[in-house]
Amino acid sequence: MPAALEELIEALRVLPGVGPKSAQRMAYHLLQRDRNGAGRLGKALDAALAHIRHCSRCNTFTEAEICERCASPARDPHLLCVVEMPADLAMMEQTHAYRGMYYVLMGRVSPLDGIGPRELKLDRLLARATDGSVQEVILATNFTNEGEATAHYVGEMLRARGLKVSRIARGLPVGGELEHTDIGTITQALVERRVV
Amino acid sequence: MPAALEELIEALRVLPGVGPKSAQRMAYHLLQRDRNGAGRLGKALDAALAHIRHCSRCNTFTEAEICERCASPARDPHLLCVVEMPADLAMMEQTHAYRGMYYVLMGRVSPLDGIGPRELKLDRLLARATDGSVQEVILATNFTNEGEATAHYVGEMLRARGLKVSRIARGLPVGGELEHTDIGTITQALVERRVV
Repeated sequence: MPAALEELIEALRVLPGVGPKSAQRMAYHLLQRDRNGAGRLGKALDAALAHIRHCSRCNTFTEAEICERCASPARDPHLLCVVEMPADLAMMEQTHAYRGMYYVLMGRVSPLDGIGPRELKLDRLLARATDGSVQEVILATNFTNEGEATAHYVGEMLRARGLKVSRIARGLPVGGELEHTDIGTITQALVERRVV
Repeated sequence: MPAALEELIEALRVLPGVGPKSAQRMAYHLLQRDRNGAGRLGKALDAALAHIRHCSRCNTFTEAEICERCASPARDPHLLCVVEMPADLAMMEQTHAYRGMYYVLMGRVSPLDGIGPRELKLDRLLARATDGSVQEVILATNFTNEGEATAHYVGEMLRARGLKVSRIARGLPVGGELEHTDIGTITQALVERRVV
């Protein structure tokens, strides 16, 4: 097998969920049937690496120093909603039931994967939550074991600084994830959040 | 969502079997957890597009004008084995039961996908098979409907030129594909090939 093909197949395996057989099928497909697509993907990777960084306020992906949402004067600066991933933030926004700010953890506490408070850089969340503008932190991590553990840890950390901390209501099914829940249920969970 | 991220997610969908949700998960994974991997993949795509082409004799992927196998004096020039994909060629080689040459179709006749003899560029196979060196063409396309149709069409085409054409034996299960068959069965099918 030519070296450049072998390297492409190996490189495709950096994608989550892609094993040796799928990587081979993908490489063949790109080289045989969609060379334009391959070129586009290569350029998109370069551009994303060059331009995408983390918002210095909410930690989500952005091309600016501060993302549009954090810079918007229309958002309520007293509320800070903590979510695991940008996809979760997008679901919260779709409820149209929340007009506050966000903090995106970009993960969750997961001891089995070696992801603890240090890896999540929770000190950055702490700094954001205690910058003087925030009056309530709403924990909207998933209701999985890892999401619950994350909420527990973050809640303890923020309450110790005298912050009001709430958790979105357990309107979501146990074990459920925001990304796969209907908007109505997420809305209900947001409205029924309770102080913890 | 930042434009470069949106484009990366769209671009990842050029990969076969990747829908909107997986593309999003892949993009987050690359940007958050494996930026080195993303850079490597981008480079691998560029390098593959720049260096990988088709062998002018057997049509497989190669970085040279003629691939190593076609250039090797150790191979029997009188036998030409026709396979669908490079992965099938690799399986044939693993049997150690074949020392002839190959022609890789890079596909199969598939009317539903709009792939006919013209799209497969079967005139190139015809030219290769009638270049004077080949005494027997062994059809080793899959025993799927499409592989069988391909074998039938190619067989007709080559017999019309007076070539001896054989088909690997139906030792493979009906509906089976070379890529997922054990080496012993493929060996048997090769040994028991019959003139058609």
